[in-house]
Amino acid sequence: MLKVITSKDNNKIKHASSLKERKYREEYQEFLIEGYKMLEMAAEAGCIKEIFTLKEIEGIKQEIPQYLVDPSLIKKISNSVSPEGVVAICNMVHRKSKKMNKVVYLDKVNDPGNVGTIMRTAYAFNYDAIIFSKGSCDPYNEKAISGSRGSIFFLPILHGDLEEFKEDKDVIVSALNEKAVDIKEVKLPKSFILVVGNEANGVSQEIIKQATITTKISIDNIDSLNVAVAAGILMDHLR
Amino acid sequence: MLKVITSKDNNKIKHASSLKERKYREEYQEFLIEGYKMLEMAAEAGCIKEIFTLKEIEGIKQEIPQYLVDPSLIKKISNSVSPEGVVAICNMVHRKSKKMNKVVYLDKVNDPGNVGTIMRTAYAFNYDAIIFSKGSCDPYNEKAISGSRGSIFFLPILHGDLEEFKEDKDVIVSALNEKAVDIKEVKLPKSFILVVGNEANGVSQEIIKQATITTKISIDNIDSLNVAVAAGILMDHLR
Repeated sequence: MLKVITSKDNNKIKHASSLKERKYREEYQEFLIEGYKMLEMAAEAGCIKEIFTLKEIEGIKQEIPQYLVDPSLIKKISNSVSPEGVVAICNMVHRKSKKMNKVVYLDKVNDPGNVGTIMRTAYAFNYDAIIFSKGSCDPYNEKAISGSRGSIFFLPILHGDLEEFKEDKDVIVSALNEKAVDIKEVKLPKSFILVVGNEANGVSQEIIKQATITTKISIDNIDSLNVAVAAGILMDHLR
Repeated sequence: MLKVITSKDNNKIKHASSLKERKYREEYQEFLIEGYKMLEMAAEAGCIKEIFTLKEIEGIKQEIPQYLVDPSLIKKISNSVSPEGVVAICNMVHRKSKKMNKVVYLDKVNDPGNVGTIMRTAYAFNYDAIIFSKGSCDPYNEKAISGSRGSIFFLPILHGDLEEFKEDKDVIVSALNEKAVDIKEVKLPKSFILVVGNEANGVSQEIIKQATITTKISIDNIDSLNVAVAAGILMDHLR
């Protein structure tokens, strides 16, 4: 279905543009993606609502509206300095995870690049889901989506407090305290939640208290690793 | 030594501002740092040339000039949207590495965030040096410096072709080809260079040809990991 939009005051353009803000993404349960590669993955995931494009895109389901727009309108709804020529609105899919044996929990991780990279690694390592604490960066932030390299379409994304998810799982917390054992010594539990913490402050005390296993990556010379690197190394050991 | 600068046309301000560009950093062998934490680490490394600050900073050697400036001048020489109130010029220190047994080589890695993060991990894992190929991001880019969390002051930083450094070392290349063995199967060599490649294209063919060991991190669902995460996992196995 191909239509043309020419005015920046068109309601669909205004709506798309509003999705740059988290509050509107949450209100409408929609988010923006950009570029051909992302569009392909979103199509595979079946979550595209509508497309704004400089030229008609082949291989997209008939029932998904495509709106032909000019570069100034793409610029209005894009977050890029030099947009690729296609922006789409996607529906948030609240994917239920069939199993929850291997889960990563982000405790107030707030850099979107880190969040996107952790989603990418979790998906690559077959994690069952990623859970975002209150105070973590929005996974649908444009930089998080881009850093996830499309993992966001397939990895189940959940929100909430650790308590809601822990059941009888081991809670493995990455923290530098006297209880922490080297990750190389940790035996892979059957079912666990791996918690990584905020860039500046690490995992919060309330969550450290709930740990059944406290672990660390042994390092020298410097206080800490980047959280996405640390999460990657921990997930590499816990898979 | 405390002086006051009030004019944005002052030569010292103009010079500092020029160091935002790579060509001037290379010409003068100087780079900019920002913020109190970075300043502290640079002082420890002994590479501060001069400081521009909103207020006099204690604990800095007498012979290092401190220039009192106002916020508009800080803004002119800073790369931050909201600068912390101190910017310094540092001298590039061409630190010779005492030994070169455990080295990471960046083959056209070009995102400054990735480069900074890899420096941080290499330093944390006691790597002897990091080598930048032609076409890699400048390690003295402000985002790389910030991502390195000060590692840049201590980790020996070298530039050049792989050939110049390989001698009798093993060359361990991260690449997805039929020769690649899982990193978990790689026995730690006595002396090696670990090569990680460009974000979009991986390690270049000329370098893959020189590999004595080709390795990979086993993943599913997606083509690749983020290069800083991959480098982190590889260095974690190779230490």
